[in-house]
Amino acid sequence: MKVLVLGGDGYLGWATAMHLSGAGHEVCVCDNYLRRKLNTEFESEPLFPVPPLQDRADAWARSGGARIEVVIGDVADWGFIRGLFEAFQPDAIIHYAELPSAPYSMASRDTAALVLQNNLGATLNVIHAVHETCPGAHIIKLGTMGEYGTPNIDIEEGWIEIDHKGRRDRFLYPRQGGSLYHTTKIMDTDMLWFYVRAWGLRVTDLMQGPVYGVTTDESRRDPALAPHFSYDAVFGTVLNRFVVQAVAGVPLTIYGAGTQRRGFLDIRDTLQCVRLVLETPPAAGELRICNQFVEVFSILDLADRVAGAARALGLPVQVQHLDNPRLEAEVHHYNPVHSALPKLGLEPHLMTEDVVAGMLEVVSVHRDRIDLAHILPEVRWR
Amino acid sequence: MKVLVLGGDGYLGWATAMHLSGAGHEVCVCDNYLRRKLNTEFESEPLFPVPPLQDRADAWARSGGARIEVVIGDVADWGFIRGLFEAFQPDAIIHYAELPSAPYSMASRDTAALVLQNNLGATLNVIHAVHETCPGAHIIKLGTMGEYGTPNIDIEEGWIEIDHKGRRDRFLYPRQGGSLYHTTKIMDTDMLWFYVRAWGLRVTDLMQGPVYGVTTDESRRDPALAPHFSYDAVFGTVLNRFVVQAVAGVPLTIYGAGTQRRGFLDIRDTLQCVRLVLETPPAAGELRICNQFVEVFSILDLADRVAGAARALGLPVQVQHLDNPRLEAEVHHYNPVHSALPKLGLEPHLMTEDVVAGMLEVVSVHRDRIDLAHILPEVRWR
Repeated sequence: MKVLVLGGDGYLGWATAMHLSGAGHEVCVCDNYLRRKLNTEFESEPLFPVPPLQDRADAWARSGGARIEVVIGDVADWGFIRGLFEAFQPDAIIHYAELPSAPYSMASRDTAALVLQNNLGATLNVIHAVHETCPGAHIIKLGTMGEYGTPNIDIEEGWIEIDHKGRRDRFLYPRQGGSLYHTTKIMDTDMLWFYVRAWGLRVTDLMQGPVYGVTTDESRRDPALAPHFSYDAVFGTVLNRFVVQAVAGVPLTIYGAGTQRRGFLDIRDTLQCVRLVLETPPAAGELRICNQFVEVFSILDLADRVAGAARALGLPVQVQHLDNPRLEAEVHHYNPVHSALPKLGLEPHLMTEDVVAGMLEVVSVHRDRIDLAHILPEVRWR
Repeated sequence: MKVLVLGGDGYLGWATAMHLSGAGHEVCVCDNYLRRKLNTEFESEPLFPVPPLQDRADAWARSGGARIEVVIGDVADWGFIRGLFEAFQPDAIIHYAELPSAPYSMASRDTAALVLQNNLGATLNVIHAVHETCPGAHIIKLGTMGEYGTPNIDIEEGWIEIDHKGRRDRFLYPRQGGSLYHTTKIMDTDMLWFYVRAWGLRVTDLMQGPVYGVTTDESRRDPALAPHFSYDAVFGTVLNRFVVQAVAGVPLTIYGAGTQRRGFLDIRDTLQCVRLVLETPPAAGELRICNQFVEVFSILDLADRVAGAARALGLPVQVQHLDNPRLEAEVHHYNPVHSALPKLGLEPHLMTEDVVAGMLEVVSVHRDRIDLAHILPEVRWR
């Protein structure tokens, strides 16, 4: 299939592009380098050197991969994006072109406005570009499990039947996020759902949990193919950050009690999930929602796993609790359904001691590049 | 109280400003004249001449009203709006500063993008300006009954308790709108709810039905005080449009079967509702949602009422069904709760034959200004 990966320079975007290229799809990646610019602004470089996108595509080809087309441009620029869709005529669009950071969205009015306008403007343009230039194309949108928050009832897979005063209807599962960023993802889902009904779009919304991992089967081929791996408090996800803290010999910093529970997945499973939904598209006029995670852990569980694996490698690890900078329940019900992706054939990687040890080993190689200046939370919700 | 009316030049904004001024509040109105610019672009002028905002404020003062401060500027301009909030220090903000048209939001990518960015950008700025400059102030936000759509269960007043697999929680009532415009209002509510939880804001969200009416108690004092009354297919609401069609001697145009049911209210009740919620603010950290309408009618009911009142005045009236340009169920359950505003003291005006006859008489005076060029729908959802 012809697949357009928007946000193709990011942690997941580039890894996805290689994975789909390796599976025989014709891939075009598009990115405006916004994350790189923000890394520069925040003085927080990713752990591995990340060459420009065209250099990575060239390295992928040299390593035996097929040609990946690279286009640098902004999904928020309508003239640009409409032209790209018209020229490439994708069968599917993987839409990663959003700012993914909760703390960034809470840092100031200006960062909040950028997240709001970037994320919703990008999604609106994708919808209109599909409608105008390739109406049968499949939009695969990255949502987040954070859209659901932590309700006191079981989290269903996107939809819920509500019985009320003797009548019944089916609704999008009610969602309330823990940051403006999460709220923009809720809004995205609502916007996609409207246009699915109005225009018969074909959409998959992947409600993804926090992702961990430093390598994929494809990235191992060449150091230039490494993912854009952040570990700072603004753009790093929790397990990745803990691994870096363990290697750096500083305490793993837990926000609050650490009893908050979330559903996590290995970056290799993100790639598998995206490929599975790509290869089994929903019907026109269907919004398919999949809860994309593999295992539920508390933050304390993660710290224990990292500490255990690190000690086995001879790295002494300490754990430190910080005042929680976020607005989140620390004791809560959490029982989310996640059966759609296994039904499509997902064969999950589990967070074993071997997997965590492997991450520690890769990060250790780059130990000299670790910069601890921005690893502690600087943004407080209140 | 010191009250800032954003979108103070609009159909409801200016009428609200006068009403609150008349009730003894200190009022500042702010507007960027966007609606006037769009009227010019669409070549659809309002029925009554509408002088510039400062001229209307002067006319209000000449008629015996208190001074209303006028500020021309864009709520989407953060520097401007933050400065205005800091200088005026409002006790309450009435937020009408949004593009209110479903057809406009469906006309093209560009109109959709303007509605999305204008409406959400304005709400985000209001939230941040309150948080930074007047954190106890009460935000009164105009939502729409259209956020709920037409679900097959009763519509509650903003919230619903859901029992699910033996557990229970309370959620925002699930909403799905019938246009991008309606979807932006859903997003607004979600955004306000997030910041209410994060920052303890004090918010009232008024889920308003379609408004009708050509005069208010205050606007009668001087022709310069008339509301910005649109009757075209893009910015006019249905009863107002029917009244103009009846006066012009053209058929009342019903979209589809006309069995669609909605909750309507007289513009004088909008003013009453806004004043009532202003004078009884919610607690800090509370999102109060009120369903703001008085009577449920089908579109056919409205046509019958207008036809009946018009014939009594000697105006022959015909009715014409058009292919429905919108995406809406024409046969549906509709039983929305609306008890919060009556509990606060709302004394509703009903849509009596006298009220409709009064509208017909006022519109007849301006018959020569009626331009039928844009009264038929030009925007189709599909």
